[in-house]
Amino acid sequence: MVEIAVMGYGVVGSGVVDVLTKHTDNIAKRAKEQIDIKYILDLRDFPGSPFESKFTKSFDKILNDPEVKIVVEVMGGLNPAFDYVKRCLESGKSVVTSNKELVAAKGAELLKIAQKNNLNFLFEASVGGGIPIIRPINQCLAANDVVEIAGILNGTTNFILTKMITEKMSFDDALALAQKLGYAERNPAADIEGQDACRKICILASLSYGKHVYPEQVHTEGITKITLADVEYAASWGGVVKLVGQVKMMPSGKIQIIVCPMLIPRDSQLANVDDVFNGILVRGDSTGDVVFYGKGAGKLPTASAVVADVIDCVKHFKARKYLYWEDGSKEYVEDYRLNEVSMFVRAEADDEESAFKNIQKVFGKVDRITRKNAENREIAFVTIKMQEKEIVEKLSEIEKMGVEVKNTIRISEL
Amino acid sequence: MVEIAVMGYGVVGSGVVDVLTKHTDNIAKRAKEQIDIKYILDLRDFPGSPFESKFTKSFDKILNDPEVKIVVEVMGGLNPAFDYVKRCLESGKSVVTSNKELVAAKGAELLKIAQKNNLNFLFEASVGGGIPIIRPINQCLAANDVVEIAGILNGTTNFILTKMITEKMSFDDALALAQKLGYAERNPAADIEGQDACRKICILASLSYGKHVYPEQVHTEGITKITLADVEYAASWGGVVKLVGQVKMMPSGKIQIIVCPMLIPRDSQLANVDDVFNGILVRGDSTGDVVFYGKGAGKLPTASAVVADVIDCVKHFKARKYLYWEDGSKEYVEDYRLNEVSMFVRAEADDEESAFKNIQKVFGKVDRITRKNAENREIAFVTIKMQEKEIVEKLSEIEKMGVEVKNTIRISEL
Repeated sequence: MVEIAVMGYGVVGSGVVDVLTKHTDNIAKRAKEQIDIKYILDLRDFPGSPFESKFTKSFDKILNDPEVKIVVEVMGGLNPAFDYVKRCLESGKSVVTSNKELVAAKGAELLKIAQKNNLNFLFEASVGGGIPIIRPINQCLAANDVVEIAGILNGTTNFILTKMITEKMSFDDALALAQKLGYAERNPAADIEGQDACRKICILASLSYGKHVYPEQVHTEGITKITLADVEYAASWGGVVKLVGQVKMMPSGKIQIIVCPMLIPRDSQLANVDDVFNGILVRGDSTGDVVFYGKGAGKLPTASAVVADVIDCVKHFKARKYLYWEDGSKEYVEDYRLNEVSMFVRAEADDEESAFKNIQKVFGKVDRITRKNAENREIAFVTIKMQEKEIVEKLSEIEKMGVEVKNTIRISEL
Repeated sequence: MVEIAVMGYGVVGSGVVDVLTKHTDNIAKRAKEQIDIKYILDLRDFPGSPFESKFTKSFDKILNDPEVKIVVEVMGGLNPAFDYVKRCLESGKSVVTSNKELVAAKGAELLKIAQKNNLNFLFEASVGGGIPIIRPINQCLAANDVVEIAGILNGTTNFILTKMITEKMSFDDALALAQKLGYAERNPAADIEGQDACRKICILASLSYGKHVYPEQVHTEGITKITLADVEYAASWGGVVKLVGQVKMMPSGKIQIIVCPMLIPRDSQLANVDDVFNGILVRGDSTGDVVFYGKGAGKLPTASAVVADVIDCVKHFKARKYLYWEDGSKEYVEDYRLNEVSMFVRAEADDEESAFKNIQKVFGKVDRITRKNAENREIAFVTIKMQEKEIVEKLSEIEKMGVEVKNTIRISEL
């Protein structure tokens, strides 16, 4: 019998308790031991809950109980989660978490403590919800060099963009619908500004390349500037707008990493990842492209990933799982403006035809794109591939010529 | 330093040697030990090979060398692979294999020997080539009940069907092209008759439900009867024809398992799995649908999956990996004719309109489908869902009424 504690009884926490209770026998068979929830930590009361006797408001009670071998942290946020997790690991308890903010900010530090104490610190549920991704990258792709990872990592923004694309809903209406359906929180900033996706690509990058990437090192753009006009231009270009987190290793040994809306060609495996689904493409030097697809969030998918980690933890008490990466460094992330991209540009000008001649003068070859019902003064084009800083310079040049740049979206090559 | 032997220096075997040699340092870092190839078993000579000194024609040399801790079996086929693998496991050597025929026929038996001797018997590469699928099903989905698995598991047939769908190539021309490109063997029977896909779905079913399913228990149809007419009708119905291996658990505790061409709706995540790619959908009760996509075959993808297993083996010398399923039984697989499906039927009749009336009389509600350039006498429809044996009876009824059934294809609900 292994005793565990669950910290946080919100959506994921109650899901973890549900899954562990519903599948007790099956899980015991797989883990080769019975797993028992001894404590559930939450500051709220849950009178009448079948687990009432297990609730506690005292973290110290969990920390000081030597019977508790595994602590599940599903509180979210950095404080007090970081402090709690750290102290659990220092006290000889393995930790399983779904907390992407924690892993993205403090992964290297916590993995180091876990390694020192020969414990497991597992976080499959922190990226992709119920989609297995951390473990496949770590294990199955161990004989590969990961060339690049690109993922649709946030279900909320993907739902909003899907509604804009398929139902011509405005951004505001789609966001309101997402909130109504419970896909977006009342304060949706972390989703729509891209921070959630940023944390997830940081975790995948850290794991794949063995060195921590901190969220503040990543240029992050959300989807708030995407309009129906952009979505329509994307369609006539032959693709869709998706919020993508992307990382690739450069020949210099530095990484290029970014979170931003991208134009994805319609025949890409990521183009059909719709609604609240996530899709993660891992390009290996031996495997080629491997794509993982599924529900990236939600109570039961996330909870089942947490419980799978708990089972793995139980099976590996003696042999620690080798999840590990080292501390990051400032120089490790290359300036995103040095990356070569081609760019979709939506602009306005008084005389579109002479404006387009100026655009060609400045950019050289560009592909002009049109859409049905384009508004007056509208002009849109896609540049050839060049360093992003060069594109920015050229955009400011055409602005001086009277072309007003309304939005730019990077073109994905995946 | 861990010494290993590679048995078989064909496409996959030489890939394994390549990957182990190319990524030596990285692999040593991940496995926490240097991995050295001590022997390569092959009956052929490879003069001038950089690995010339490692070649041997003697299996006994490998078997009797106590230094060899892991044996990689990439010879393929049942004989002598089964005998060799069994004797390796009995002699205390862990085994990694990519041999789907071996695992599908003898998995339970070999896993039992491995367990008895506290050894690993791993076979990630046997399904889906470079796509991680065995391990995610076993580990990440451990807290789930697998409701159903459906996969496009054979790249060769998927390439042929893709060419038929996108380029209106005939089956024979597409097969010839696949052979020319090296995707199909000179004797393509195992691919086009569905046996290869059958072995793979047997392995996935055995793993997911803990009980061996033998290939001969599975109703298996290949793609040789699929014509361009079927492909066109699929398009006008709103989908594509794919060769699918499918297994689901029935309320009775028996499984329904089948390999056959299916009509997949265009918005399914499996519909866009094209060319030589594989896609495997795993439906869990908690996770919902998770899809794994990538190259299902090929030298380097398969080799990298084998090497990942070798690394895992090295990391788990002390703690055996818990891959396990029990022996199968005759009653465990339900008669496929008891399964409820809806069926696409392509037929011919002298008077289409009166034939259709007869079809409606026999089947009740059916959806009639048409295609451009339909030949004279052609008539096609989709039945409502009913037991397959009932469909067969009704088909023989309409045949008595002068309707000649040319082909039938099951409709997938995924």
